[in-house]
Amino acid sequence: MDKNIETFIGCDAEYEDSKIVIFGAPFDSTTSFRPGARFGSSAIRHESFGLEVYSPYQDKELTDYKIFDSGDIELCFGSAESALKDIEDRASEILNDGKLPLMLGGEHLVTLGTVRAAFKEHPDMHLIQFDAHCDLRDDYLGAKLSHAAVVRRCHDFMGDGKIHQFCIRSGEKSEFEFAAKHTDMHKFNFDGIKEVVSELASKKIPVYLTIDLDCLDSGIFPGTGTPEAGGVSFTDLLSAIIEVSKCNIIGADVNELAPMLDTSGMSTATACKVVRELLIAIASK
Amino acid sequence: MDKNIETFIGCDAEYEDSKIVIFGAPFDSTTSFRPGARFGSSAIRHESFGLEVYSPYQDKELTDYKIFDSGDIELCFGSAESALKDIEDRASEILNDGKLPLMLGGEHLVTLGTVRAAFKEHPDMHLIQFDAHCDLRDDYLGAKLSHAAVVRRCHDFMGDGKIHQFCIRSGEKSEFEFAAKHTDMHKFNFDGIKEVVSELASKKIPVYLTIDLDCLDSGIFPGTGTPEAGGVSFTDLLSAIIEVSKCNIIGADVNELAPMLDTSGMSTATACKVVRELLIAIASK
Amino acid sequence: MDKNIETFIGCDAEYEDSKIVIFGAPFDSTTSFRPGARFGSSAIRHESFGLEVYSPYQDKELTDYKIFDSGDIELCFGSAESALKDIEDRASEILNDGKLPLMLGGEHLVTLGTVRAAFKEHPDMHLIQFDAHCDLRDDYLGAKLSHAAVVRRCHDFMGDGKIHQFCIRSGEKSEFEFAAKHTDMHKFNFDGIKEVVSELASKKIPVYLTIDLDCLDSGIFPGTGTPEAGGVSFTDLLSAIIEVSKCNIIGADVNELAPMLDTSGMSTATACKVVRELLIAIASK
Amino acid sequence: MDKNIETFIGCDAEYEDSKIVIFGAPFDSTTSFRPGARFGSSAIRHESFGLEVYSPYQDKELTDYKIFDSGDIELCFGSAESALKDIEDRASEILNDGKLPLMLGGEHLVTLGTVRAAFKEHPDMHLIQFDAHCDLRDDYLGAKLSHAAVVRRCHDFMGDGKIHQFCIRSGEKSEFEFAAKHTDMHKFNFDGIKEVVSELASKKIPVYLTIDLDCLDSGIFPGTGTPEAGGVSFTDLLSAIIEVSKCNIIGADVNELAPMLDTSGMSTATACKVVRELLIAIASK
Amino acid sequence: MDKNIETFIGCDAEYEDSKIVIFGAPFDSTTSFRPGARFGSSAIRHESFGLEVYSPYQDKELTDYKIFDSGDIELCFGSAESALKDIEDRASEILNDGKLPLMLGGEHLVTLGTVRAAFKEHPDMHLIQFDAHCDLRDDYLGAKLSHAAVVRRCHDFMGDGKIHQFCIRSGEKSEFEFAAKHTDMHKFNFDGIKEVVSELASKKIPVYLTIDLDCLDSGIFPGTGTPEAGGVSFTDLLSAIIEVSKCNIIGADVNELAPMLDTSGMSTATACKVVRELLIAIASK
Amino acid sequence: MDKNIETFIGCDAEYEDSKIVIFGAPFDSTTSFRPGARFGSSAIRHESFGLEVYSPYQDKELTDYKIFDSGDIELCFGSAESALKDIEDRASEILNDGKLPLMLGGEHLVTLGTVRAAFKEHPDMHLIQFDAHCDLRDDYLGAKLSHAAVVRRCHDFMGDGKIHQFCIRSGEKSEFEFAAKHTDMHKFNFDGIKEVVSELASKKIPVYLTIDLDCLDSGIFPGTGTPEAGGVSFTDLLSAIIEVSKCNIIGADVNELAPMLDTSGMSTATACKVVRELLIAIASK
Repeated sequence: MDKNIETFIGCDAEYEDSKIVIFGAPFDSTTSFRPGARFGSSAIRHESFGLEVYSPYQDKELTDYKIFDSGDIELCFGSAESALKDIEDRASEILNDGKLPLMLGGEHLVTLGTVRAAFKEHPDMHLIQFDAHCDLRDDYLGAKLSHAAVVRRCHDFMGDGKIHQFCIRSGEKSEFEFAAKHTDMHKFNFDGIKEVVSELASKKIPVYLTIDLDCLDSGIFPGTGTPEAGGVSFTDLLSAIIEVSKCNIIGADVNELAPMLDTSGMSTATACKVVRELLIAIASK
Repeated sequence: MDKNIETFIGCDAEYEDSKIVIFGAPFDSTTSFRPGARFGSSAIRHESFGLEVYSPYQDKELTDYKIFDSGDIELCFGSAESALKDIEDRASEILNDGKLPLMLGGEHLVTLGTVRAAFKEHPDMHLIQFDAHCDLRDDYLGAKLSHAAVVRRCHDFMGDGKIHQFCIRSGEKSEFEFAAKHTDMHKFNFDGIKEVVSELASKKIPVYLTIDLDCLDSGIFPGTGTPEAGGVSFTDLLSAIIEVSKCNIIGADVNELAPMLDTSGMSTATACKVVRELLIAIASK
Repeated sequence: MDKNIETFIGCDAEYEDSKIVIFGAPFDSTTSFRPGARFGSSAIRHESFGLEVYSPYQDKELTDYKIFDSGDIELCFGSAESALKDIEDRASEILNDGKLPLMLGGEHLVTLGTVRAAFKEHPDMHLIQFDAHCDLRDDYLGAKLSHAAVVRRCHDFMGDGKIHQFCIRSGEKSEFEFAAKHTDMHKFNFDGIKEVVSELASKKIPVYLTIDLDCLDSGIFPGTGTPEAGGVSFTDLLSAIIEVSKCNIIGADVNELAPMLDTSGMSTATACKVVRELLIAIASK
Repeated sequence: MDKNIETFIGCDAEYEDSKIVIFGAPFDSTTSFRPGARFGSSAIRHESFGLEVYSPYQDKELTDYKIFDSGDIELCFGSAESALKDIEDRASEILNDGKLPLMLGGEHLVTLGTVRAAFKEHPDMHLIQFDAHCDLRDDYLGAKLSHAAVVRRCHDFMGDGKIHQFCIRSGEKSEFEFAAKHTDMHKFNFDGIKEVVSELASKKIPVYLTIDLDCLDSGIFPGTGTPEAGGVSFTDLLSAIIEVSKCNIIGADVNELAPMLDTSGMSTATACKVVRELLIAIASK
Repeated sequence: MDKNIETFIGCDAEYEDSKIVIFGAPFDSTTSFRPGARFGSSAIRHESFGLEVYSPYQDKELTDYKIFDSGDIELCFGSAESALKDIEDRASEILNDGKLPLMLGGEHLVTLGTVRAAFKEHPDMHLIQFDAHCDLRDDYLGAKLSHAAVVRRCHDFMGDGKIHQFCIRSGEKSEFEFAAKHTDMHKFNFDGIKEVVSELASKKIPVYLTIDLDCLDSGIFPGTGTPEAGGVSFTDLLSAIIEVSKCNIIGADVNELAPMLDTSGMSTATACKVVRELLIAIASK
Repeated sequence: MDKNIETFIGCDAEYEDSKIVIFGAPFDSTTSFRPGARFGSSAIRHESFGLEVYSPYQDKELTDYKIFDSGDIELCFGSAESALKDIEDRASEILNDGKLPLMLGGEHLVTLGTVRAAFKEHPDMHLIQFDAHCDLRDDYLGAKLSHAAVVRRCHDFMGDGKIHQFCIRSGEKSEFEFAAKHTDMHKFNFDGIKEVVSELASKKIPVYLTIDLDCLDSGIFPGTGTPEAGGVSFTDLLSAIIEVSKCNIIGADVNELAPMLDTSGMSTATACKVVRELLIAIASK
């Protein structure tokens, strides 16, 4: 009789054989408004069984690729630095083994852990961010390590011109001013993404893709800490993912599903579909 | 003092006088993911009183037409064949009386009962399906009678070229391959519907219309067992219904509302509006 | 140690200095379908702290303007006339002080109170209504003072040609017939709004703007008594607000959020954003 | 084919043959805290089909008695006096026909309508009230007709010593002082009920029983406008109902279920069971 | 890097070493009222991580015993016989290996599968049932295999005097009449359980314990298809479990948690605690 | 026109005149299972308006005492030490002014801040804890500052024999072992509380009372991170509060309401009632 192994649907290859390694980072201690993203990775894995492994959008099957799901890391609530250290270690291990880490959050701060690991391997890397929020605060109520400051923390070591932000529609005035000087910000939607991808792909620059699911319109993704009206549609996001997958992707994450906030379950179902399409897009390259 | 009679709003004509007869099929035993569609027909009837009888879209009033609502059939949970038999009997009785059955589901499997009845009367009939899912599996975990196989079961006796599928965006690879050979599948949206309707209407072919409400985007219709992002809007669906009503409609159904899954009630409200518009569209022809 | 003062985010100026004065009208006794709008104003104020004060849409900050929030009026449930009297008194006080009242409902009937007050000051005023429903019934089950009759009551004293209705997609046939004769109705969306605004703005006509949030599509605004599919998007509404702000606005209100009906909180979050954008649009003129 | 008749389970006798007549009073306009009791009667009727007709507590079957369910009265929201008039008329009709009215609320104010009707027939009647709240305010924010004043309004015409209150655990100080002088109040639980019943039964005094379901502990009945901890258990309530049924009951009601406030459905299920037991207790005498 | 193994907390022994084997039976197709028990076993496993492994009630730790959790069986929705066959096979395998099966439902019908398996091994076995409902119908709307008939089906082969029922407070009159003749029924609570256990334990009779969690009061366990007021408390149930564990237990199950029906999560938390206490009680014997 | 001041009902005295000062500590970053307690203090304040100021249990009115409500402190999520510092400062300020701090949590860790402040003033103080959980871990996943370790942290400086724990029914074995040696633990209920209070009161020992609302049975208090079946009733808790108020109370708190977890609102309503009774009990001494 077998033990009870749970993976994202179709991702049941052996670690050694896999090109992509999924892991969950169930952390949300710095969430300033409504917590719950800690349950995101687990819900995505669990509810993925309502999905098929076949994508009619890309006409490919997830099971045609080798993907390993190592489950959730056990993280310490209340200590952001400690949690980030554990995340960075896991991502580094995967990268060192020549594989691509795909992290499921968790709040957006977890991205700092994987980007630190990726930057060690690829100091020339760029970051593409899909998000409703700038995440460019210098601190949040004094905390340097906050979901609202995560991209600013990445900029601290990545520097100017390497961060490409899309769908942004919320933030403090100072964040937008920072972006004007230091990042490549595309407000409200994905306008300009083809040009960015074309440039990055042609130069084979290593790209890390971070998807804060609140880039989606709150109407189709209410299950998140700070839902924002005026976002992109699922098909917009899908097209953008497929576009970005033309780059040399070296890591990715999908964040900020807070499943309990949407009792209808549609947010979780949408997150699952985003993960399936992202996995297929990356794996099939 | 009168007994408490409940009907869909405005559908209080006598059976003998009516052109359309509504009945509910509260069954969801084969639902593979999240059950609850058994409560759909009752919720639609009950919540219809939040609607007006007038459609500003079609500039017509529901009360200008004779429609009878016979309530829900009492169905046996746990036995799909027995439930389908009872549904087929009810639909046959209505068809034999020269009336048009309009069934409220229930899970999508219930359509097999009414299509069987309709096919007996109209062996040349076509089926138009609005749905997120192919529903073309040969079986589901061994069960031939499953919501995921319902259109395949219809194909068993209807044969090739008679099933027109719209809005499809989920299924196994084999279902899409089956569709490529045996059905007229239109993926993702209603592209091509005018051509299909034009052909069917010009030949006065009897048409049965089955609407799985999950064809709608999950953002406007989360209250269903397997909500799917990337669907059509309410106005898209409304236009498609009005388009299809140009055909010789001989029966129709509206399925897969699971009202408890959407505590906001918007899914039920939308389902009511779909039913009102469908009734007016058909009745006014 | 300070008392606990709660305002809409960023609206903490002194009354004397303020151009705009916010107040809440927590009343929903005449709601015919699903009540709960009484909690709307309080929820908007409370949840506004999930917002930033900066609008990337208008590139302005709410805190650059002087706005006072006087909290909710205590209203008597069960007596519409008494509640309307209290609302009219509050609005009159604000208008008499040369300020602009911005009311947060409550059900839509509360608008009658502020429009009465505004009409006393500005007998040449026009009313612009964003709403899914006509609200033009002569009475509702015998009640002259009903949310479903509020605009009809305004017409009683405002007369023909002064009411401009947008996004209307629900009502009785007789209401649409009334509109054809007596109001300037634009069905379904904001088509024609530029022309209306151009005319009103050029003549400097005083304009009162009433926003029933159910003008929004039910997919992005389920948290309301009677959600209606087929509505406008948040960005449509935002553009319309900015357009209308070109007029000589003398009062405004935002109504019909019933926060408990949407446990995901996205409806409340959207309402907060509408209020922020409306405040900035009016205040910056 | 039959019309769709909905009754409380097992209550499908003809009016002429029935000893008890059920009707619903879907009104909650004066509810001061959380509305929703308007949906109570309908939910009780609808969900009663999860019950059996047999009571193991009383070892009797509901179907052994003739009971008629006339459905809900259509009441005007926003006008308490008008709604009370309609309720009084319905109750008077039933009483005039020599039958016993059993009303399903609605908020507690609806009891004033039936008690007025009962008092016209039986000026010597007593009122037994099961309730968490005194309901003895002279007015609520100026309104004489309020759920919080309903028993005070009954006292206006019934006079001293005729109102027996049980389970009371909430109210203003002045209400408790009023009770000390004018009513027979039993705080917190059913202590003293045997003595009260013994006295009333021995004198064959006509008794009207009003049950505000919030007498139950909030733990087993959260689905009500103002849930109160520290209440009685279901079995306490059941025993009290059976005790009171020894009196000469001439009317009764069950109020204040607000089904939407308890999405688990347990409050509605409990209300159904209370109604079944109350019907059997009265009918079997 | 390890695969993601999910078990009930603390139950991570190897199969060979284990005395107790947990498995889930996610089936609810015959549920007549509100479905959702299919998600029970998975929720119990998942949420068990909110528990400690130590029981202060029994002063023992779950991790002191060897228990294996084999996850959920994949069952075919819509075919009760097929599902029961799969359950029986799994239970037989465990029993054949000299281990004790502990099944997590699922609706109560699943018990028929394990009892069939247990009866093959132990034809002298008795069944102890904790339940609000008799489950003694001969059929339910024609279906012999129904959750409402499951104990009747067991009686079919076990015969008279071997079924001990506790906490029963709902059923048809005929079921109570059947019980009076054929089973040992204890209504409403656990009265008499010490005597039953004493008799069974002294004779070392093999005992199968089935716990329908709706034996608990609906106030503490609303998350079930048919919640019933008037049930036992958690501590009553705990005492009864510890009492029954004095018998020669050869199998057990815990059923009818429908987690989605209770969004507060307390029903799931309670179910987890029941399972922990049951495991410790049995394992420590 | 007045600013919008929000206080717990009836607590609107001036700071200088007040004996008791309420403040909220909206922090839950270390919550290990389900977060949301950050919204507890705000919900209690907001929903208190569904309460009366009069307690029939104590026959006293809250408005007879001078109490000031200073609102919520703004705390940094993600940094427990920083949050605790801010809480300690606020409590110290109140204590220094000769007033009694009454804190509304937040997760239970916040108690460490107030107890630190109280201990500075009263090094001989005792701590009385009502709680389902020991909260005696030495650390939680490495974090010394965790809600699961809060009482252990208090023990660090308070020492043996000064902590009195009641209602405890959950924890690791090692925590119970620690308690056996170092604290005065009363498992499951309030047994022994009269003796403890008698001893403390007779010696006029300063006592700080911390109430983790999960001491209540999960059936009446599901709205908390880790609901635990088998707890005390509301009336048990009320009696215990009144008993403890005989001591020389120098500070108190009420923690762990997570209002969003219980959409019925009964948990919040119960918390409000606990706070009212606690305030009256302390203030009237």
